[in-house]
Amino acid sequence: MSILTFGHKNPDTDSVCAAIALADLKKKLGEDIAPAMQGELTPESKFVLEKFGVAAPEVVTSYAGKDVYLVDHSDLAQSPDDLGKANILGIVDHHKLGDVTTSQPLECWIWPVGCTCTVIKSMYNFFNVEIPQDIAGILLCAILSDTVIFKSATCTDKDKAACEDLAKISGVDDVQALGMDMFKVKSAVEGTPIRDLVKRDYKDFDMSGNKVGIGQLEVVDLSILDGVKADLAADIATLKKEGGHHSIFLLLTDIIKEGSEVLIVSDDDSVIEKAFGVKPADGKAWLDGVMSRKKQVVPNLEKAFA
Amino acid sequence: MSILTFGHKNPDTDSVCAAIALADLKKKLGEDIAPAMQGELTPESKFVLEKFGVAAPEVVTSYAGKDVYLVDHSDLAQSPDDLGKANILGIVDHHKLGDVTTSQPLECWIWPVGCTCTVIKSMYNFFNVEIPQDIAGILLCAILSDTVIFKSATCTDKDKAACEDLAKISGVDDVQALGMDMFKVKSAVEGTPIRDLVKRDYKDFDMSGNKVGIGQLEVVDLSILDGVKADLAADIATLKKEGGHHSIFLLLTDIIKEGSEVLIVSDDDSVIEKAFGVKPADGKAWLDGVMSRKKQVVPNLEKAFA
Ligand SMILES: [Mn+2]
Ligand SMILES: [Mn+2]
Repeated sequence: MSILTFGHKNPDTDSVCAAIALADLKKKLGEDIAPAMQGELTPESKFVLEKFGVAAPEVVTSYAGKDVYLVDHSDLAQSPDDLGKANILGIVDHHKLGDVTTSQPLECWIWPVGCTCTVIKSMYNFFNVEIPQDIAGILLCAILSDTVIFKSATCTDKDKAACEDLAKISGVDDVQALGMDMFKVKSAVEGTPIRDLVKRDYKDFDMSGNKVGIGQLEVVDLSILDGVKADLAADIATLKKEGGHHSIFLLLTDIIKEGSEVLIVSDDDSVIEKAFGVKPADGKAWLDGVMSRKKQVVPNLEKAFA
Repeated sequence: MSILTFGHKNPDTDSVCAAIALADLKKKLGEDIAPAMQGELTPESKFVLEKFGVAAPEVVTSYAGKDVYLVDHSDLAQSPDDLGKANILGIVDHHKLGDVTTSQPLECWIWPVGCTCTVIKSMYNFFNVEIPQDIAGILLCAILSDTVIFKSATCTDKDKAACEDLAKISGVDDVQALGMDMFKVKSAVEGTPIRDLVKRDYKDFDMSGNKVGIGQLEVVDLSILDGVKADLAADIATLKKEGGHHSIFLLLTDIIKEGSEVLIVSDDDSVIEKAFGVKPADGKAWLDGVMSRKKQVVPNLEKAFA
């Protein structure tokens, strides 16, 4: 395969499904391309691919000398370490514009919507390519995942409209029920090593020169995490020491109550109060209404660090 | 007006026409937006707007506190100096991805085609908005300008297809003749101050830490420049001193012969030989087949400087 497409490190369902769908679309447009991912499937992504009978992409961590499309990120920190030796053909994303640059013209489809897969769904329409039933199913799941079943502040009308179309194509009658099934899988913590829970959806950011890690665990009920919360707090403290971070924040997001408990280890606790107006106690704080790392947590923290 | 859209510094016809057309499209999609430009019209752009009866955008050099769409660039060096204080809603472009970043999700339409206006033509189609006759005319001219009437190495089938549609919509029977009329205006040098000729289509680049200026003058016959060539060479030497450049290159491009004579002032002449395999003599060199600064000159020089 001469071209590879892949999402960010610690791939989530959007990164995996967007890579699969973009490879499908581009193949039909005549490109020799395969999907890849920078790490193993999460339980949620595994559930989604198995539900619709779609094969998992290969895990690839080195891309030197390859032609690549990035999906679901445009930050060097989220990209493979040897991205500088790859030739970037394009980016499909829905985040803020990161620090990836290129030395050749490229193809970017980056929209301010809730999920990369919403953009890819529109690309199928634009290029007049029919979306296969199984691909429609995983695109639908990715949008439900990234938008927390339409509850996230990042969710837009375009995401909802895409899901309506995708539900029809994939033959899903009850979108809400599919979303809850998926989030129950995502919520499960039994038998998972603590570090894996911390890293399930974890990203490092550079905020005004400070290394800041932000993880997020989304559950259908916070009580699911009662038995592991102390271990999670201890592990982010260890991770902070290992990584030399200024701060690590772990968001425990209750998608039904619509808010997040944040576990905090930081050289300066006051950034949380600066960012959210809430004083942490015992290394944690409840952030009411905060569901989205990208739209709510990262911008507020960046301002607090600036 | 709450939103402004504008192209790069020293605006060319693509930057001006793309801003006008994007504002038209976005207005029809419900946004409160106006086109702007960072500098005065070139004679070519003036000819194009007058030919199709389209008003020139306002010259605006400060964008602090504004919501903005960038067109035809994604480099901080090409953007307004206070771009950091603006809120970037999106980018429509056809260059390599530059060093602009954002702290919020945004809308990017960046394609590896010959002209930003080719992307905007497709955006009208995507959003199902009819292209007005006058806008079609200026989009057509911008594509003819950026692709040097389809002769540039950057020209793609998408640019040609867009021009076919745009010629129909704008009622232009002879696209080739329109292009030649436009390039004759662009070629004219009488009565133009030397510095204006140097700066007519001029950009500064950062190449591995070196400040490199590259200007381009496209003419229908190099002999048009015989009377001013010595003055141009002297002026880029002055400009180099003023700006503290490592090198300034001025491409005198003959669009009929399909090549460029490059005038050189540099701390290290050998970069031209490294980049193009041609040894300069008397501060100049003929680069056969080299028509595109973006696709041929910049990538080769970047490699030579690396
Ligand atoms: Mn995503
Ligand atoms: Mn252009």
